[in-house]
Order: sequence, then C-alpha cells, then structure tokens
Amino acid sequence: MTTSRLYLYDTTLRDGQQTQGVQFSTTEKVRIAQMLDALGVDHIEGGWPGANPTDSDFFDAAPQTRATMTAFGMTKRSGRSAANDDVLAAVLNAGTPSICLVGKSHVFHVRTALGIPLDENLDNISASFAHVREKGREAIFDAEHFFDGYRADPAYALACLHAAYSEGARWVVLCDTNGGTLPNEIRRTVEAAIASGIPGDNIGIHTHDDTGQAVSNSLAAVEAGARQIQGTLNGLGERCGNANLTTIIPTLLLKEPFASDLRTGVSEDALKGLLRASRTLDDILNRVPAKQAPYVGHSAFAHKAGLHASAIAKDPTTYEHVDPATVGNERIVPMSNQAGQSNLRQRLREAGLDVEPGDPRLGRILDSVKEREARGYAYDTAQASFELLARRELGLLPRYFDVDRYRVISERRRNAKGQVVTVSEAVVTIQIGPKRITSFYENAHAATEPDAGPVNALSRALAADLGELQAYIDDLRLTDFAVRITDGGTEAVTRVVIDSEDGQGRQWTTVGVSANIIDASFDALVDAITWKLVRDGAPVPA
Amino acid sequence: MTTSRLYLYDTTLRDGQQTQGVQFSTTEKVRIAQMLDALGVDHIEGGWPGANPTDSDFFDAAPQTRATMTAFGMTKRSGRSAANDDVLAAVLNAGTPSICLVGKSHVFHVRTALGIPLDENLDNISASFAHVREKGREAIFDAEHFFDGYRADPAYALACLHAAYSEGARWVVLCDTNGGTLPNEIRRTVEAAIASGIPGDNIGIHTHDDTGQAVSNSLAAVEAGARQIQGTLNGLGERCGNANLTTIIPTLLLKEPFASDLRTGVSEDALKGLLRASRTLDDILNRVPAKQAPYVGHSAFAHKAGLHASAIAKDPTTYEHVDPATVGNERIVPMSNQAGQSNLRQRLREAGLDVEPGDPRLGRILDSVKEREARGYAYDTAQASFELLARRELGLLPRYFDVDRYRVISERRRNAKGQVVTVSEAVVTIQIGPKRITSFYENAHAATEPDAGPVNALSRALAADLGELQAYIDDLRLTDFAVRITDGGTEAVTRVVIDSEDGQGRQWTTVGVSANIIDASFDALVDAITWKLVRDGAPVPA
Repeated sequence: MTTSRLYLYDTTLRDGQQTQGVQFSTTEKVRIAQMLDALGVDHIEGGWPGANPTDSDFFDAAPQTRATMTAFGMTKRSGRSAANDDVLAAVLNAGTPSICLVGKSHVFHVRTALGIPLDENLDNISASFAHVREKGREAIFDAEHFFDGYRADPAYALACLHAAYSEGARWVVLCDTNGGTLPNEIRRTVEAAIASGIPGDNIGIHTHDDTGQAVSNSLAAVEAGARQIQGTLNGLGERCGNANLTTIIPTLLLKEPFASDLRTGVSEDALKGLLRASRTLDDILNRVPAKQAPYVGHSAFAHKAGLHASAIAKDPTTYEHVDPATVGNERIVPMSNQAGQSNLRQRLREAGLDVEPGDPRLGRILDSVKEREARGYAYDTAQASFELLARRELGLLPRYFDVDRYRVISERRRNAKGQVVTVSEAVVTIQIGPKRITSFYENAHAATEPDAGPVNALSRALAADLGELQAYIDDLRLTDFAVRITDGGTEAVTRVVIDSEDGQGRQWTTVGVSANIIDASFDALVDAITWKLVRDGAPVPA
Repeated sequence: MTTSRLYLYDTTLRDGQQTQGVQFSTTEKVRIAQMLDALGVDHIEGGWPGANPTDSDFFDAAPQTRATMTAFGMTKRSGRSAANDDVLAAVLNAGTPSICLVGKSHVFHVRTALGIPLDENLDNISASFAHVREKGREAIFDAEHFFDGYRADPAYALACLHAAYSEGARWVVLCDTNGGTLPNEIRRTVEAAIASGIPGDNIGIHTHDDTGQAVSNSLAAVEAGARQIQGTLNGLGERCGNANLTTIIPTLLLKEPFASDLRTGVSEDALKGLLRASRTLDDILNRVPAKQAPYVGHSAFAHKAGLHASAIAKDPTTYEHVDPATVGNERIVPMSNQAGQSNLRQRLREAGLDVEPGDPRLGRILDSVKEREARGYAYDTAQASFELLARRELGLLPRYFDVDRYRVISERRRNAKGQVVTVSEAVVTIQIGPKRITSFYENAHAATEPDAGPVNALSRALAADLGELQAYIDDLRLTDFAVRITDGGTEAVTRVVIDSEDGQGRQWTTVGVSANIIDASFDALVDAITWKLVRDGAPVPA
C-alpha cells in the first residue's frame, strides 16, 4: 500500500512569537530552528524580515537546515507594483528559498480592513505570486480568514486561492485566523477547495485554538485531503495559540488511520526527542511546562487512580493509548520505581557513568531524584546537577569544599550627592581542606554583569578565592539564570536554574531549590563550580 | 424549531481529583459544588463514598443544589449479590438521588483485569442496575473502555450497555478511558450504539485529552446523537485531563450548529460567570491560570500582531470569533514596538482613560513606552504598569508615597544547635504625606509563603505599614513572579514580572527592570500597590 506524504510547516518563530509575553532573541531563534530541524519538520518560518529587527537579524544568522527556511510577509499593497513594494522587497531580500505571503480572502476584510475593491485584492494576490515565482522562489499563500470568508462568499474566497495557485503558488494554506471554525465546517470547506480544482497536495491548513479544537481542525483538514499542516511547538501563538505540533506529530505517527496512510519527515528516532524539544522551548521562554500536555506533559502517563495503577502493573496497555517511550516520556506509577531504570542508565551514560542493570545504586538514584523532584527540583535540563546527584549516590563525588556561611545585602539609598544608588555586597566563608577562607564582593547598580545584584555578588565572592582550586574556575562564567515559583510538596518554593560556560566553550546547567531565591541561587552556583572541578579532574585538597 | 436538551454532567470532584497533585478538602468540595450549581450543570458527581474519607464526608456535608447530586462507585463484584456487596452499599448509603456505576465493557479488561467469564460481567452489570433501581435511585452506567472495547468486540461492548439499559439505567455513558480514540471513530461508535436500540437521549460521552481532542470527541458524540457530556472544570483529570467543560459550555451556547439545535441548563447570565468560576477553581488549587485557555484565558482575546490590533480598533469581529464579555473575559490590545496611536488609545480606554486623537500626550506616552522597552521593560502582559506609566504622562497619577530607602539581607549560617538556617530580613522607609514610616520584616527558611526569601521579606515590609492607606492593600496578594535576564540596551538587566490579586478576584500584572533582581522586584511591587490604590480610588495623603 502506498502512503501519502504530509508536510509539516512550523511557525513557532513567527506566529509563535505573537504569544503574549514572548519575544525571542536572535540567538534563541537560531537554537529553536536547529531543534525544529532535528525534529524533521519540512518548513521553518523564521519571521517577517523588515517588520522587526530581530526577524531580519535571524535570517542573516540562520543556520544551515534540511528544512526549507521560509520568510513571511504579505501580498503587495495597492497602488504600486510588486517590484516596487518595499515591504515585499524586504521579505525577498532575506534570501530564503521559500516565501510565504498572507493575503485577504474574506470580502468583509477586503472592504473593512483594506478598503479596496474586491478585484483589486485578487490582482494584488496574482501580481505578488507572479513576482515571487519570477524571482525563482517557492511561493506559499496564507489565505487569511479563509473559513469565515468561504462562509460569507464562497466564490470570492475560492477566487483568492486560485489567484495565487494559478500564478504558481506551491501551497495555498487555508487559515482559520480567528480560531472559531469547528471541525465539520473545516472538513466541508477543504473538500470544496479541492472540488474547485486545487489538488489536496497543494492545500495546507492553519488553525488556532480558540475553541480548543486546533488539533482536531488540522486533522479534519488532512482527512479531507489537505497535505500541509502549519503549527507551532507547544501550541505557542496569538490568543489561545496555534495548532500544537507537539500534539499533532505523535498523533500522525502513532495513531490510525494516520500512521498507516501518511508519511512525514519525522523519524521514529526524532519522535523520541519530542519531550526534550518541548521542554527546551519552555526553558528558553522561562515557562513552567504544561503538566497535562498530551504526550509530553509530566502527567501524561501518570496513573493516579488505584484501579488504574494496579492494572498498569499487569499490562500497561490497559490504561495507556501509546507507549510513553515513543515520545521520550515516562510512565509515572506511584510506589513503583522499576519503570525508568533503563532511562536512567541511558542518562548516566550521557554523563560518562556506566552502571550495570540491577545495580542497587540505580534504585537509590531514582529514589533520590523522585524525592528531590517532589521538593521542586527539575532535572530535565539541569543535567550537571543530575550528574552530581548520581555521583553522590555512586560514591564518585569528591568533597572539594564546604560552605560555612554566607551573607548578602542589597540596599537602595541616597548617596552623599542625593542620588539614588543600589548596592549589593556578599561575604562567603568556605572550608577547603584544613583552610578556612572568607571572601567579600561588592557591586553597584550600573555594573555590566548579568544581574549586578545579590546573586552576582554572591557568585563573585564564592569564586573569588577557592584557594588551591582557584585556577580551575578562573574561566567559569555565569551566562544565564532563570527563576520560577513552583510547588515543593505542600509549600511554594523557588527554583533557580543557572547556565554556565567556561573557556573551552563547555556549557552546563545546574539547579537549586529553596523557599529563598538567594539560597536556591547559591546552591545552583555551588553545583556549577563543583561540576567543573569534577570534569576537569581537579585534585581534592588534602 | 424545537431544540433538543443536552445534559452536562460534572465530575470535577471525582475524576478531576485524579489530577496529579490535586486533593480537595471537604470544604473545598462544597465550595466547588455551589459554583457548579450556579453555573447550571445538571449532575454533580461528588466522589466515591467509601473509597476515601473526604468523599464520604462530602456527601454528609453536601449543599442543597438544583443539580442532581451523584455518588460514584462500581458495579458489584463477582461472588456476592448486589445487596451483599459492601462497596456498592457504601455508595448507596451516601443517599444521593443519582448513582453512577463504572463497569467493564471491553473483553480484554474483563479477562485481564477482572479475570472472570464474559457472561459473569454482564450479570454483574444487570444485577447492579436492578438493585439501584429497586432502591428508587436514578442509575447511570459509565461503560469503561467502551471505544477500545467496541473496536475489539462490538457485540460484547454493546451487550454491556444493554445489560444496564434494560435494567432501567437512565444514562449509559460511553467512556474513552485511555483517551486515545479520535473523533471519527467516536462518531461512528456512538451511531452504532444508537443503531443497536439505545436512544441518543439515553447516551452520554466521557472523554480524556490524551490526543488533545477531548473537546472535539465530546462534540462529535453529540453530533452523532449523544445527549449527555461528562467533563470537568478547567479540564482537570487523570493524565492529560477530562473533557474541559470550561471550553465546551461556551462552544455549545455560542457556536453553530450547537447554539441553535441544543439547549443546556446554563443561562446566558451564568455563562458570564464562567471566567470567575475557572479562576476560583485555580485559586482553590493554588494554580497559575492557563493564560492561553480557550474563552477564559488571560490571553484568549489578546491581540498582539500589529495588523490585528489596528483592525480590531475598526471592528472587533475582524479578529474575534465571539465577544469576550459573553464569558466574562476582556479584550487586551498589548503595546508592542510597532504600536500606533490607535492601539494606544484603545489600550487607554481599557484602563478607563479617554484621550482624544491627536492629543500630544499620546506621543509622549508612546515615546516613554519605547524608551522603557529599549531598557528591558515589557508591557505585553504588564497592563497595570503600562497604565501607571500612561497616568504619569497624563498627569493622572496621584503621588501616594515615596520610598526613601530599603535594605534587605539574606544569610545562611549555623544556629546555636549547629543547624543550617537561612534568614531574610528587610527594612523599608517610606514617606506618606508628612509622615515618615519605617517597617521591618524577617522570615526564616521554612515559612510557607511563596519565596520566603528577600523579595518576600521586602514585600512584607513594604506592605506592613502604609499608614492611612493600609486598609486599601490588606487584601493584596502576590500570586506569581517570573524573572528573566534580558537585554537593556548595551547591558544585560533583570526583568521581574509580578502577578497580584485582591479580595475582589481582580488580577493585575506589573513589571520592574534593573541590573539588580531585588531592585527590579521592588519596583514591580511598588507598581502593584500603586495600581490597587489608583483603582480603589484611595485618597492622596495630605
């Protein structure tokens, strides 16, 4: 039996950035693009060059990808030729192999938002796509408000699609821009577009989650014959978000009839990285991962009901629709820690630690991870802290130094000139071997360090004098830290995640948890230093 | 035209409690039941009496409701009569007018989980429902794993439904227990159940969100003829959660064809309380509300894209599928870099500030927003800080108090017993009218406040004594804070975003930026307090 190819078009970097509170830096965009490429999406929409500086910068810095890099823009404006539209020119100037242009397909919007005759909008679409094709680029048409437009004036909505398609658009994408269309209407409308003469192999679907049905709407369109799905990782996007590719991808690969009837560019192996990709994006955004997210949520395979848990022990398929390992997730069954040992050994191997199956220390590491996660720790990304925890249980963690005490002060006051100044100072006392060392650091408001505040002062004081170990940490640099309030059992606690870097370009992540943000930061700092000492094989002070 | 009655069955208190980390107290259950009743659901499933003490206590304390109070249990076990099954007796003893019993309908589960002959399971179902009807109660059958069961052995799955229905079950509810069935199969299977002789008016649907389609699955079943939907508020529930009634209810009332074809017990007025109900549940659970939740999310009607925002100003229906007021929500037009004057005026109106087009102060506000965004501020979500900034430029910001100085200390040391303790203390001096007030607060590591650290100490000290303004901020509560390192021009700075709430259920967001995390937090705290004083019309101290 032959299967049909379905294409995945990711717009996390463009429509995803329309999420309230989300603004990616260029570096973050590059990192996300690489992650999407590893996952196996077909198109990566990088942004709207010209519309904002970060988007233009991204295309200059864009990584080499297997996925087709795509710049987003809009069809040419009235009153000038496509060649003379500077907004369109900026999009083409990004130099991507593929160009996606949004345009109107709803009579109401042509009249109300654009205020131009209906024919003129059709001309603008045709001319824009003729121009993009003339420049040798792949062309994609995002037909804005297509479903609302089709409901209001089917002939005109279809004419807009054909204006782009007849000029060589590779894809015409039917957009449910306002997110209010329900699955049956999506299905019927896609069928009508195909019946009008545009093959399903040239039709895409772009949905939003305003009725909680963006996933179902996308799949309904595919059932009707559409062969491209536009969406975002973790369902980022304007208002309630776009169709969530993190949910759609495993459904396409694991569930019937999609698994048998369709092929995508996502391999089984790449699918196993789905959870990691989802969590990394949350990390970049400093967001708490959605616990109940389908497939990748922390609770997605958690069996709390007693009846469920006991049946799961007999046969996991009794209460699981797919195997959690297929998406890199884990089963959570209270009172059982057998699950997870093979996962754990894999993760230890990544840290260079080989442990035999059945080694009782594996159980102790799992218990320790669980106990600490219940207190608010998160080891998904903080691999360095995880490694230290495992080494402690394995008896492989040298004792480099002990912290006796620290004290940090932040103060805002007026100086002698009457100016408001903010000052942070820290004192740290450590014990290294037989030696007791006290260090002090003070910084002022205008310092150029990330967080020229108490955490920075503390980190400087701690790293100021490690005695004979000092040479090992001279090149250590704190590159980022993220703070989150989270649940630690019955109490709310603060989790601090710190990214560090050294002169060899190594990067590592550590985590600290406490009811006190300074205390949590301090523990993550101590982990960051300790990990580097371990990795560099520093000698333990006598 | 006659419309058909659709019944809503809420299981927040039973299946909703299967959510990881959720455990309601009896008082909380009573409060939630009253809220559900005000909303207009038809059944409230209160728990499984006998299975855990809180559930039994709840039925003793259950409030008078218009909705039918329902106790949950399971069909009688093999080897005893229905009358002699103590588990079933405990359910009946709760004395509710309605009883819902879960039972098997999947051959695999009868064999694997129960380990009994198929006929015996049918007998157990029949005998259980005969017994419940004999006791004069309404009887409801939750057919567990019905869709998986129908796929495996259609005749047996249907026979299980008929075993309950023929003994007088008012509802047979088709459960997609593992959450893996997709909408088309749901639709076909419900049609088959109706074709087997059970009217749609006696068929219910119970779905889970493991493929992100619990809402679509519920609606597909209704389209096929089912007339009861089981679900939970905010989609609480085992694994990825149950069908989200907070999404389903407005879809049924506001979207076609449901709005015309069906009636529920939820009035237009009650629908306006939906957002409040959703937030109250989050509050009880101490959860951060899902920002992108359909209909009730804080971002559900937020229009960030520049093109969207300018069209919204002309006509909200251009980018909104329903009016936010119908569910008690509000439109948000965030400020962004591209924001023009019409956006700005719209946003000012939302804050109750009417400014004429062309007013030169609009330009000053925009300049101020841009200048501060360049320094690292973000006003997308921090509407309250935006409002204060605008009021300042408009000359409408009362001067309530000035901060003279603050000082905060965090320290980790050993106490007299040699235990490691962490302590934070803060001193704040403010000037209110002619009065100078100095307040002090100290906390220790184990305090149960979110962030029992320096920010908390500072916030407590600041809010400890606002003199004559104190009464206005007594009910102010810090619900979340998020920290991010970001670019502030050439320097890296820390941005702190704080969510606050008061006794009236108002929520607002403020932002502070500084190279020092404590300083940034402090500014966001001062904004949070000031906004509340403005909104409550506090008098300016003389």
